[in-house]
Amino acid sequence: MKVFWIFAHPESRSVNASLRDAGVRTLHELGHECQVSDLYAMGWTPVVRANDYRHDPSERLYVAAASKQAYVTGALSEDIQAEQEKLEWADALIVQFPLWWYGMPAILKGWFDRVFVKGFAYGVIDSETGKTRRYGEGKLTGKRAMVVLTAGAPAPTLGPRGINGELNALLFPLQHGTLWYAGMSVLPPFLVPGADRVSEEKYASAVNALRERLVALPDAAPIAFRYQNGGDYDDDLVLREDHARGRTGLAVHSPDPAPVQPSET
Amino acid sequence: MKVFWIFAHPESRSVNASLRDAGVRTLHELGHECQVSDLYAMGWTPVVRANDYRHDPSERLYVAAASKQAYVTGALSEDIQAEQEKLEWADALIVQFPLWWYGMPAILKGWFDRVFVKGFAYGVIDSETGKTRRYGEGKLTGKRAMVVLTAGAPAPTLGPRGINGELNALLFPLQHGTLWYAGMSVLPPFLVPGADRVSEEKYASAVNALRERLVALPDAAPIAFRYQNGGDYDDDLVLREDHARGRTGLAVHSPDPAPVQPSET
Repeated sequence: MKVFWIFAHPESRSVNASLRDAGVRTLHELGHECQVSDLYAMGWTPVVRANDYRHDPSERLYVAAASKQAYVTGALSEDIQAEQEKLEWADALIVQFPLWWYGMPAILKGWFDRVFVKGFAYGVIDSETGKTRRYGEGKLTGKRAMVVLTAGAPAPTLGPRGINGELNALLFPLQHGTLWYAGMSVLPPFLVPGADRVSEEKYASAVNALRERLVALPDAAPIAFRYQNGGDYDDDLVLREDHARGRTGLAVHSPDPAPVQPSET
Repeated sequence: MKVFWIFAHPESRSVNASLRDAGVRTLHELGHECQVSDLYAMGWTPVVRANDYRHDPSERLYVAAASKQAYVTGALSEDIQAEQEKLEWADALIVQFPLWWYGMPAILKGWFDRVFVKGFAYGVIDSETGKTRRYGEGKLTGKRAMVVLTAGAPAPTLGPRGINGELNALLFPLQHGTLWYAGMSVLPPFLVPGADRVSEEKYASAVNALRERLVALPDAAPIAFRYQNGGDYDDDLVLREDHARGRTGLAVHSPDPAPVQPSET
């Protein structure tokens, strides 16, 4: 398998960096190929700007249209094209980060903002049906993705009734709204909670748990998000009454009987 | 009232920029004072780095500890200190952005990552009780906050059963996990949906609706998120059984009978 590992932490001596190194070693031992984008080490630029699209600055910028035009004509900034090529090469994507303010660090959010342009990750039209291919269908269909993250907070606070919000709900914009949107199959996230206080025993346990998840990477069951074009949603893209009847909340978008629990180490 | 308006859009001729200008004019007409941080125009740096904290690069960086040390000793980067001063000056904060990948643009996420340091927005200890002041209590208690955003998607897709996820759930990391966490009272968000196709009529209607929300800014009822230290959560910070009994999902963290609906124009 070809695995693309995106990593976003400012400190090369962090728990996150050690976990990444352990993970990459495991992938090699398992016979997989691996490419790593260490966003801090690369000096990645996270800010969407007109010059990414060779856009004439005297003209008003429409980000979606300008990005599609640049994508189609091969005019995107070289650093964006390089990341898209790694993603096209890969069978699986690992997205690793420390949870900051219950989301991705800005340098990583801006990886998606800049790399996931129109025509590549959204606005992909099926030429036969004329429908937009998204949520389970798109150019990235067939690829797997898994979020690997640390959080300072203890695990119960990220559980189904924990004060910080259930982990999969916090990750919904990334796991459902970005990765699944673009067509990827998303495996349950791998969380190391309480990461401000990691003992040697706890670190060893986290490495072992991550190894198990990487061994299962090719075969593990993804989160069962609903397909946009599978019949579950009406023409306004609202979930039909006969699914998750009477319920609201993000969990209705997965037909699993219960929301997936955060994995704990 | 003193209002601090944070704005994150790359194009000064966008619908977002026009709405911001209209909003700031309204605030002045209402007799309020206003400061604006236009993050793109300022060339804001969104990436957390060791040099923000004058941290010795030969030492391992612990972001939380280093940021608190720099905050307490007045050693934070000047651009961070300037934003903290605007926030301390303000009675209300407006956070305006286009929804990109169901979250904030990276330049804005990195405003929170860099400005909301330990000691200022988290890790604030009550000297009497020894408890951490967060979720309804903190240095920013008494200030109001409101998210103003545009989305390319139509309103129904951001409703309670819409495919993109209910708007307040998507905004939970910002509204609950960041603003409420730091102690601010969060008003329901103001959304302009379908923002890729805004007619003159629709724009005029959006400006009027925004004006109404700004008129109500000092008095409108905030989202009724639960207080961490108000007795609803147990010692593990898990919601006690007798609240929202048998339910899970982000909506359990607000004792409103139903999740707040996205505002529509």
